[in-house]
Amino acid sequence: MGDRLVVIGGDAGGMAALSQVRKGSPECEIVVLERGHWTSYSACGIPYFVAGEVAEVERLVARTPQQFRDRDRVDVRMRHEATGIDLGARRVAVRDLERDRTYQLPFDQLLLGVGGRPIRPPLPGIDLPFVHGVQTLDDGIHLVRHAEEVRCRRVVVVGGGYIGIEIAEAFVQRGASVTLAERAPQVMSTLDPEMGQRVTAAMRRHGIDVRTDTEVVGFEDGRVVTADGVLEADLVMLGIGVAPNGELAGAAGIELGVRGAIRVDRRQQTSADGVWAAGDCCESVHLVSGQRVHVALGTVANKQARVAGINIGGGYATFPGVLGTAISRFCEVEVARTGLTEAEAAAAGFGAVPVTIESTTTAGYMPGAERLAVKVVAERGTGRLLGAQIVGGAGSAKRIDVCAVALTARMSVHEMVDLDLAYAPPFSGVWDPVLVAAREAIKAV
Amino acid sequence: MGDRLVVIGGDAGGMAALSQVRKGSPECEIVVLERGHWTSYSACGIPYFVAGEVAEVERLVARTPQQFRDRDRVDVRMRHEATGIDLGARRVAVRDLERDRTYQLPFDQLLLGVGGRPIRPPLPGIDLPFVHGVQTLDDGIHLVRHAEEVRCRRVVVVGGGYIGIEIAEAFVQRGASVTLAERAPQVMSTLDPEMGQRVTAAMRRHGIDVRTDTEVVGFEDGRVVTADGVLEADLVMLGIGVAPNGELAGAAGIELGVRGAIRVDRRQQTSADGVWAAGDCCESVHLVSGQRVHVALGTVANKQARVAGINIGGGYATFPGVLGTAISRFCEVEVARTGLTEAEAAAAGFGAVPVTIESTTTAGYMPGAERLAVKVVAERGTGRLLGAQIVGGAGSAKRIDVCAVALTARMSVHEMVDLDLAYAPPFSGVWDPVLVAAREAIKAV
Repeated sequence: MGDRLVVIGGDAGGMAALSQVRKGSPECEIVVLERGHWTSYSACGIPYFVAGEVAEVERLVARTPQQFRDRDRVDVRMRHEATGIDLGARRVAVRDLERDRTYQLPFDQLLLGVGGRPIRPPLPGIDLPFVHGVQTLDDGIHLVRHAEEVRCRRVVVVGGGYIGIEIAEAFVQRGASVTLAERAPQVMSTLDPEMGQRVTAAMRRHGIDVRTDTEVVGFEDGRVVTADGVLEADLVMLGIGVAPNGELAGAAGIELGVRGAIRVDRRQQTSADGVWAAGDCCESVHLVSGQRVHVALGTVANKQARVAGINIGGGYATFPGVLGTAISRFCEVEVARTGLTEAEAAAAGFGAVPVTIESTTTAGYMPGAERLAVKVVAERGTGRLLGAQIVGGAGSAKRIDVCAVALTARMSVHEMVDLDLAYAPPFSGVWDPVLVAAREAIKAV
Repeated sequence: MGDRLVVIGGDAGGMAALSQVRKGSPECEIVVLERGHWTSYSACGIPYFVAGEVAEVERLVARTPQQFRDRDRVDVRMRHEATGIDLGARRVAVRDLERDRTYQLPFDQLLLGVGGRPIRPPLPGIDLPFVHGVQTLDDGIHLVRHAEEVRCRRVVVVGGGYIGIEIAEAFVQRGASVTLAERAPQVMSTLDPEMGQRVTAAMRRHGIDVRTDTEVVGFEDGRVVTADGVLEADLVMLGIGVAPNGELAGAAGIELGVRGAIRVDRRQQTSADGVWAAGDCCESVHLVSGQRVHVALGTVANKQARVAGINIGGGYATFPGVLGTAISRFCEVEVARTGLTEAEAAAAGFGAVPVTIESTTTAGYMPGAERLAVKVVAERGTGRLLGAQIVGGAGSAKRIDVCAVALTARMSVHEMVDLDLAYAPPFSGVWDPVLVAAREAIKAV
């Protein structure tokens, strides 16, 4: 590789590449630009920091700037923001936010790990200070500080996706009264509705005021305005989704794709030679649908960055794609999905056969057996697994991984039924719930 | 199919075939011969009945004789033992144990689900009444009754495999003082020794007197004699393994294989036309080594019986084979394996590269994170996964299923590292421990 790699972004999309870059290219110069105060942290851990389950925010930091400097000999520049990329001159315009000065930084190779941001729909009052989105660790600290200042008792969460249900749980644990406004008929609209309904029901059991089919139309001080009336709020959390930070790349003439995410090839290279991207800012390919998608998840960011790092260091690696696997919990109810939902499979043109079964997490006779539901979606005729969803008690949801591996291997439900999965009474029924679902799907395809 | 199917054995190997047989062949006559008092029970649940976690033995019964009669129109003959098979005349010799009479029962097709039995090495005193093996529900009831009668305080468990550690835990929960005698240097000799060592250590932490490298040479009343001295015992449990009940088939001229298990083809048919076998009495093919093996597990029995039932009913199905996946727990320590251990892989002729990593069950910063170790064995050069072992705290061991699916799909560790497994802080680190192991294995192969 060339003499200098510049990395924009100090979290997973950038930093998870560094050890691979160093392995392939021990002598190159590496400069990291991070506009915030933290490197390499777990954004996914923020709800548990808000809840108080994780006491110190520093526990969410996997590696500090100094640790990167020491381990990988990296010039980490904190509070430095990249404001422009000149592909012709091969340099980045940088603003030093603390010293309020700008400078040009030449690069030979460039890695964009610029992440994403919580979607803020253009509604009246969206920029009021009591309306929070959480993406960076700085956001999380700001949120907790604000919540403590206003001694917040009434929280409105807008959007019932993963972030929404996790933040709702966090504020329940903080003793707040929580209302969740969801535009769709059920929360967790990344699941099929009848599976999302189980989560809606669980949230209501725990005292969350879940308002489904409820469109938020604006914010006033201390109030969230919906089509069906006004909700009082000391604090509002947006959980509508994450948009990729593609603007910097787009302005430089780098090709963008789905939802404005940076387009990359299978080696994580952008349309510009020697310019790479990884993480929440870039596109992925969906392994089942074959379509380009934007999936903003820490696991994907780490894997893409690893691949980018190998390639930047002169090696060869490809990132095969994603399944949209996701998992969460609301209090004692676990939720997971992978692959395509019934609706997504149909939209992608598959003849999709859905089967839902109910089973238990352990042998039914064991104390502590928890109920769970597994939905599998298989292709009509071939029986090829297209996706799966799980909602249930403790010990349910991580079983989704079995389906994720089966999807990657393009297995049919006929092949899945004979999978030699682990069985003992404290861990499963003699037919694991995933296999029960596969067995029933065989009858249906 | 012919007019009459005779099934020998009322547990999984036989009974799990019935609904498939009925589907393919609604009108045939089905006669089941069971020499014991129970049908279709969870033998794997017996340790939890012994421990008192499962209060009534009836809870271990999935389906009673009457339920089979009602659902599948089956003539279930309890306490009837098959004593001989005449392949030429196509009939079974039956002894009615209650009425002490014998009769001949003609068959058109025959399904052998005759199970296995605890291995009893030919040692002096092995037949003393205080020496127990547990395979059937009748055995389990007899064991608990005896333990209550003698108010057993001192238990010696011979053999530290799955049954051994589960029964040891059960008697700890009953308040007994437990000694475990294991011939090998570590318990769990189905794992590589350094993984078994973690289980040995856990058992000692819980007060089990684990005597490794200890050969039992005989039994006297109230004493177990070892090469290193005598152990006092009110009750002895054998946990040395399970032998297939192949004798009935062997005497009839049906081909036997590994360890005397009944040889079957991929449709579960024996060497005799129209005679089928499933479960602990028969062989399987190991999906990684390609070798014939004897694996006595409820999951395998159920799957083989399902395949046999489809074929008996005139359909077509094959059983692909096993991975030797197994899981257990000793108190809070979970243990699992799948595929080949390092030693088994070397013995099967593979260039086997072992890698062991330590990680946590959840994100490391979450309260309740438990430590776990994952060992993967990969093929040198190709990186093909050959096997995996996990030992760790609550939430560790069921992850072995990811490796079981990857083995079935013949994945390499290079393919595994990009698997889109589920991540959220309560469920996993951002790199699932299995992926951490795969990532390290890539460096080693």
